[in-house]
Amino acid sequence: MTENTVALRPGSTIGILGGGQLGRMLALAGAKLGFKSHIFCPDENSPAFDVTPFKTVAAYEDEDALRAFAAQVDVITYEFENVPAATAELLASLKPLRPGANALAISQDRLAEKSFLASKNIPVAPYRAVHSLEDLERAIGELGLPAVLKTTRLGYDGKGQRVLREPADAEAAFAELQPHPLVLEAFVPFEKEISVVVARGADGQVRAFDAAENVHRHHILHTSTVPASIPPGVDKHAAMLAKVIVVALDYVGVLGVEFFAIGGEKPSLLVNEIAPRVHNSGHWTEAVCLTDQFEQHMRAVAGWPLGDPRRYADVVMQNLIGDEIDIVPSGIDGNTQPHLYGKAEARPGRKMGHVNRIVRAE
Amino acid sequence: MTENTVALRPGSTIGILGGGQLGRMLALAGAKLGFKSHIFCPDENSPAFDVTPFKTVAAYEDEDALRAFAAQVDVITYEFENVPAATAELLASLKPLRPGANALAISQDRLAEKSFLASKNIPVAPYRAVHSLEDLERAIGELGLPAVLKTTRLGYDGKGQRVLREPADAEAAFAELQPHPLVLEAFVPFEKEISVVVARGADGQVRAFDAAENVHRHHILHTSTVPASIPPGVDKHAAMLAKVIVVALDYVGVLGVEFFAIGGEKPSLLVNEIAPRVHNSGHWTEAVCLTDQFEQHMRAVAGWPLGDPRRYADVVMQNLIGDEIDIVPSGIDGNTQPHLYGKAEARPGRKMGHVNRIVRAE
Repeated sequence: MTENTVALRPGSTIGILGGGQLGRMLALAGAKLGFKSHIFCPDENSPAFDVTPFKTVAAYEDEDALRAFAAQVDVITYEFENVPAATAELLASLKPLRPGANALAISQDRLAEKSFLASKNIPVAPYRAVHSLEDLERAIGELGLPAVLKTTRLGYDGKGQRVLREPADAEAAFAELQPHPLVLEAFVPFEKEISVVVARGADGQVRAFDAAENVHRHHILHTSTVPASIPPGVDKHAAMLAKVIVVALDYVGVLGVEFFAIGGEKPSLLVNEIAPRVHNSGHWTEAVCLTDQFEQHMRAVAGWPLGDPRRYADVVMQNLIGDEIDIVPSGIDGNTQPHLYGKAEARPGRKMGHVNRIVRAE
Repeated sequence: MTENTVALRPGSTIGILGGGQLGRMLALAGAKLGFKSHIFCPDENSPAFDVTPFKTVAAYEDEDALRAFAAQVDVITYEFENVPAATAELLASLKPLRPGANALAISQDRLAEKSFLASKNIPVAPYRAVHSLEDLERAIGELGLPAVLKTTRLGYDGKGQRVLREPADAEAAFAELQPHPLVLEAFVPFEKEISVVVARGADGQVRAFDAAENVHRHHILHTSTVPASIPPGVDKHAAMLAKVIVVALDYVGVLGVEFFAIGGEKPSLLVNEIAPRVHNSGHWTEAVCLTDQFEQHMRAVAGWPLGDPRRYADVVMQNLIGDEIDIVPSGIDGNTQPHLYGKAEARPGRKMGHVNRIVRAE
């Protein structure tokens, strides 16, 4: 069931697609394990380039560059789920690609993701595929309103979606999001968003970090708080669902699972989405776990045993967006671990860094 | 009392003299804080070069290279105490050098170090300066035997010293260690070696990590165990002495202090030596402290507030010397944090990496 794998030796080279902060943090973790990283990214100002010996600046569709990259690395991973399918297939034919191309294909498409999850009895919000305005009107009739119309691909941070509150909203929303394939999702009156970062090793071992409670601002993650304030047992249930997902995908690496936690007498969880990579809501692990999500991913990708995900302390991760980076260093105290991404320009909405603040029991 | 300092902004460049594993770990910590590191090292195969955007390959005596290096960085630090005095003075005249040249001058010379410590009422083993065979014979008469004859400069890992067991050993030992200035130290029948890594910020704030108990093999550090098995109060006393030292030096950065812990009814401590840098016996902090010694040093050097040195768990650090690196990855389990230095060749006696093993209370 699990691919037959040989553990990488220290000194091996790990190829990483994507040179943003996640690629940078993966490369830093890889360096601690004695690996060299080779970053492949079209942007010549990628922050990850500052911490690695090898880089390729080329488009993700540049077949010659991809082949040369693959020839120079021992295994390939990525920091983002929107790796073009042809790129993933080419690379996977040349070197081990971890996580595999199937995880990319599923997580790139909301509809494929939801039908995959539903097929594994993972609860998701009711949804309908929408190819036409007629489809949309029928779906509204079946799911009711409010509901959320989303593009099936390339949506993130609130982009590519419209909330429908009454039937008259349908036509304008459909027109705006066309010509992309769409999905209508029933509106979930959720109480909290929580997430679990889970890892599966090449040997099939599965380990989940504790659930984080996430708060967004302007559709961008603002804070992740651990432990999440959820009823007893809900965290274990979330971890169990996350584990089912990585086993079903025959996955190798770290995967983020976002849940809606629905309150009431019998609290329940719906999976909102999965991300086949290290996840912003797992940055807290750097501060309070022996093995953080970045090292965990690199251990998995290298075919090494996973680390223990247990948590030493309570923690709040806060993203520093745009000029929020200016709280550093004056807003840093002894209980704060800053992590900045080395980006030159603090544009509005840009993730510049994060801070992990420990909650000490005095 | 403390130099007037402006905190470095993220994106600033920190110059590091020395490109070995300590420089590499400093650069990794600096990257997390959003700094770029510029490594200056004569060895073009320095492991630190793999994780930094800027490097200079030149001799430490190359004045032109030093000037060019200083012009490109905002502050300068180092990974080793044997920076030539002229180099330190030149650099300090061009950019802030942290820790300062006085800490280098004192720690480079055993005699200067001991007389500095004694002048601050820090207990050290009885010692005598030795410039001639007559000096040595007089010193033996005063201190008794056994005793240890050491070069005052450039000794490390057991090099540059001879144990004298009887008066007849004096002449041969003196001849072997000549023409260097020497010091005779009374033999201390110590029970344990412990060490404390202490930090002082540019604002004068002082924080010490917990004391580690060190075991050497073949004169190279083998393990550091935390907590040290020492009587109650001895750890606090060690931390207090370490703090006195950094205050007396008007020090900025991390400093390692090695102690002999002498048993008996009233246990006591002698300072064996100090190192004005991050210290091998502080590598355990990576596994169990919010801020490890490398981040702590970079925070201090950057004029940022220090992090909290408190420890989450019990831990044993073990160095991987030469082919001991072959325990990775098969000897790694979930409670083990490996840290490998990216050195190509595992020569005997070469520090290739270390592992931090957590002792979990189950």
